[in-house]
Amino acid sequence: MQTPTIVQDDITIAQQAKLKPIGDIAALLGLKEDDYEPYGHYKAKVKLDVLKRLKTKQDGKLILVTGISPTPAGEGKSTVTVGLGQALNRLGRKAVVALREPSLGPTMGIKGGATGGGYSQVLPMEDINLHFTGDIHAITAANNALSALIDNHIHQGNQLGIDPRRIIWKRVLDMNDRALRQVVVGLGGPAQGVPRQDGFDITVASEVMAVLCLSEDIEDLKQRLSRMVIGYTYDKQPVTVADLKAQGAMALLLKDALKPNLVQTLENTPAFIHGGPFANIAHGCNSLVATKMALKLAEYTVTEAGFGADLGAEKFINIKSRAGGLKPDAAVIVATVRALKMHGGVPKDQLKAENVEAVKKGLENLAQHVHIMHHFRLPCVVALNHFLHDTETELKVIEQWCEEQGVPFTVCRVWAEGGRGGEALAETVIKLVEGQQTGKENKNPAADESLRFTYPLEASIADKIRAIATNIYGARDVQFSPKAQKQMEQFEMYGWGKLPICMAKTQYSFSDAPNRLGRPTGFTLTIRELKPSIGAGFIVALTGDVMTMPGLPKEPAALKMNIDNEGKVEGLF
Amino acid sequence: MQTPTIVQDDITIAQQAKLKPIGDIAALLGLKEDDYEPYGHYKAKVKLDVLKRLKTKQDGKLILVTGISPTPAGEGKSTVTVGLGQALNRLGRKAVVALREPSLGPTMGIKGGATGGGYSQVLPMEDINLHFTGDIHAITAANNALSALIDNHIHQGNQLGIDPRRIIWKRVLDMNDRALRQVVVGLGGPAQGVPRQDGFDITVASEVMAVLCLSEDIEDLKQRLSRMVIGYTYDKQPVTVADLKAQGAMALLLKDALKPNLVQTLENTPAFIHGGPFANIAHGCNSLVATKMALKLAEYTVTEAGFGADLGAEKFINIKSRAGGLKPDAAVIVATVRALKMHGGVPKDQLKAENVEAVKKGLENLAQHVHIMHHFRLPCVVALNHFLHDTETELKVIEQWCEEQGVPFTVCRVWAEGGRGGEALAETVIKLVEGQQTGKENKNPAADESLRFTYPLEASIADKIRAIATNIYGARDVQFSPKAQKQMEQFEMYGWGKLPICMAKTQYSFSDAPNRLGRPTGFTLTIRELKPSIGAGFIVALTGDVMTMPGLPKEPAALKMNIDNEGKVEGLF
Repeated sequence: MQTPTIVQDDITIAQQAKLKPIGDIAALLGLKEDDYEPYGHYKAKVKLDVLKRLKTKQDGKLILVTGISPTPAGEGKSTVTVGLGQALNRLGRKAVVALREPSLGPTMGIKGGATGGGYSQVLPMEDINLHFTGDIHAITAANNALSALIDNHIHQGNQLGIDPRRIIWKRVLDMNDRALRQVVVGLGGPAQGVPRQDGFDITVASEVMAVLCLSEDIEDLKQRLSRMVIGYTYDKQPVTVADLKAQGAMALLLKDALKPNLVQTLENTPAFIHGGPFANIAHGCNSLVATKMALKLAEYTVTEAGFGADLGAEKFINIKSRAGGLKPDAAVIVATVRALKMHGGVPKDQLKAENVEAVKKGLENLAQHVHIMHHFRLPCVVALNHFLHDTETELKVIEQWCEEQGVPFTVCRVWAEGGRGGEALAETVIKLVEGQQTGKENKNPAADESLRFTYPLEASIADKIRAIATNIYGARDVQFSPKAQKQMEQFEMYGWGKLPICMAKTQYSFSDAPNRLGRPTGFTLTIRELKPSIGAGFIVALTGDVMTMPGLPKEPAALKMNIDNEGKVEGLF
Repeated sequence: MQTPTIVQDDITIAQQAKLKPIGDIAALLGLKEDDYEPYGHYKAKVKLDVLKRLKTKQDGKLILVTGISPTPAGEGKSTVTVGLGQALNRLGRKAVVALREPSLGPTMGIKGGATGGGYSQVLPMEDINLHFTGDIHAITAANNALSALIDNHIHQGNQLGIDPRRIIWKRVLDMNDRALRQVVVGLGGPAQGVPRQDGFDITVASEVMAVLCLSEDIEDLKQRLSRMVIGYTYDKQPVTVADLKAQGAMALLLKDALKPNLVQTLENTPAFIHGGPFANIAHGCNSLVATKMALKLAEYTVTEAGFGADLGAEKFINIKSRAGGLKPDAAVIVATVRALKMHGGVPKDQLKAENVEAVKKGLENLAQHVHIMHHFRLPCVVALNHFLHDTETELKVIEQWCEEQGVPFTVCRVWAEGGRGGEALAETVIKLVEGQQTGKENKNPAADESLRFTYPLEASIADKIRAIATNIYGARDVQFSPKAQKQMEQFEMYGWGKLPICMAKTQYSFSDAPNRLGRPTGFTLTIRELKPSIGAGFIVALTGDVMTMPGLPKEPAALKMNIDNEGKVEGLF
């Protein structure tokens, strides 16, 4: 592929791509025809039997892509993940990319799509950005079947004694729809159910999504669904899905959604796109089965965790890796000049102008993310995702800083150049993982050091939260609201005290104040409220208002979308 | 296939079936590999280009399966449709079955599935009964994207001046969920939208479903979506989807849902299962594109219309056939001894006992359905769907009556015997269609007579409704509520007067009173209210309360559903 002087629209590039039939991609991975079900010519669902068959096969290397605290526009982690996968393949390593699937809500709202960008995209982007293989719709159906069963149970006599004021299970839609955040249901008299307050979340915020992404197989899925708490009785005892006998129907509705989806990148690198839990009230990574399958099928699996290392990577390690016995071999921290400047104090509208001092100052944010990787004992490389306005001087400053820190640094041009633009990064990753030194004085831990979890599961809920706040965020202390204190007591009493913690915190700051950029110190993190996700297997700790149902902007992306009789699509990007 | 002494569970039979790869089924129809997209190994979506390519090819024969006024359990129309398709194939005619796709709501509630029964089923039943190829989920998404855009428009300044009290567009879910029938949305203060009353319908009741089922291609779909009326301004002017600029995004969300789904029956007869509009507030037949495609690809297309001939067949002729230029070559009226007894006055709990007099008396219901077929100038055959408790004497009475009427009669054992049990019916259909006489004195019109519509589109709304009520239902007169009268004036003023009528009436009686069984006479039909479905292209006339969001029963079918690690499914039937 030649370097284009002007990179075209994502959708234009995607529409010009030469895709291979999905059978060819599956064959690349050594999959047999019986191992997968095609969904059209370029998508397939891979059966979980493959995991059983390859149980004794050694796993490939796992590369975790994370990032610095992002700007609202995002720093291109998905693009780097795809580009790195493509680059590893160009260097002769059999690589697979593992990513989350996009939610329709943001696609219709602001984002217009979420499948990488430029010459590092996963395809077919129209399908992946819309209904894909129906996983998210299946989750919507399973979630709302449970809701209907709850309200029906109450309407039909409420044998379990569910307190309609204490139902925590919400309905969901895969839509940005603010009018559904707070609703009253069951109006209209005795034939229309029992009135109560309710609300809708976006589907990817459903605990069902988190459960699906942490389940090993259908039985595990059913067990986890069974444990989900939907509310409390009048006696304040938790009511579970098992009490309602809904886990069988829910698992049935999810039987295909649990199978990883196989697609390809623009350069025909195999990609698993499977599961997309929110990175605030859930753990924000693709499914465990997809990651495990990729590890069995490839030499290198490149996967992404949501937001910065303080959120996505922390949960990847303490929740997903712990649940699934995963151990990343190395981490890539994606940074941009733009974000560094922002952390250095530059206002949003001036991020394009050169500002070396601001970049220097902003590096303190990157420093904390490097610190987090080393806390987990993960060797890391800084990947500077290159934007058109970046200057040589700015890049040089970052490179020098990385050299001083003993952390390898590469400039990554995967957006403009595809895999070729990621070869430097891929070489660095290979050196890190395959045991050679990189950089003048490499302060990275060795790739084979064992993972360090931030807290033992046996610690109290409060201690676990404190461990995250101080070790990962750099907080001085944690303050618990009276409500959170009471909940901690209750949760320990219900037997939920030994679960890991899923932090819900702003992605813009290490603290709970989105405007405290850079590397804040001496701050106290406030825990406002807890939320049990017993099926997923974690306690959510909320540090502020968490948006679980986004709204549409004044000019939604949907208004520019179109398709004609020839199938030409507009408005996805 | 051997006649089993005891017919097994539907799901047991389905799980023992030997399916052919969907590519083999497609090849049977002369489809090339490029013509379809596989969805797993046993489902495919056929591209609409096929219709363009075969434009000049002559259509095959079209057989419309309808029925007498049903019992609450249904008379097995789908089973007869599948069985007849299988039987025609056994007799050397290249046949295709065209059916509606089941809704998940009733599957989770009472029905547990809707894919025929016994040895006349369409497969894979687990998939068809659950998410299938995602069509209904796509409709849910398109419908609710529009809802979100409406509420967002109002929240962001309401430039169009939409009156929040006069929004007729409802949200939908593919679920039986009575608590969502009447809700208040937008609660929680200025950041959460504008509060208003709203409600959820089941997805198959959405106008989007009706639109999809009547559209010829993507452009037609967009035009129809554009015309849909979502409510009224403060000045009482209609607001359309085009005013909101939502048609492009909606069409994009429906791009795959518009393609007919190809599957097969237990005897490997090709089957299109596509679209499933409600038979009360919509027209209740599978998609026009599926029927048209079947007609191009097969010698015989066997299709079904919902409920009895007064509802499903009437709409098939006056709405679907008129919109798509279709002309059935013959009709099959499905009757059961059970339903005839019920129309003869027997209570529900005594339908199994022999009662020849009741059967005789109940034949007056069948007589009106035969009358309806002849009104449309369609030759018809009565297919008695055989149940285990039917006695020879009862069957003889029906046979004699049919002979007296000059209408062919056959006993149909497709549930117990599959296609073999439908051969007598298939032979009769072939004779009717291919021009030979059947029965002693055949009073059927010839197969090549032109169709008679019940009313001209130019007539007033009131006259069109009157024509249906008197010619089809046998009513003496029609009474319009003051509300309906006012609406008729408004609708004619808005320019909607020339559309066909979609009647919403109980399926149990020709009248609007569900308990007036048999063949009521001298009654007055009351029209309570009208509803514009301008995108679908009809005016719905409601004769009573129409249930557009069913509820779950005390013991929902969902509670018995299950799946294990080997993929074995329980609880669908």
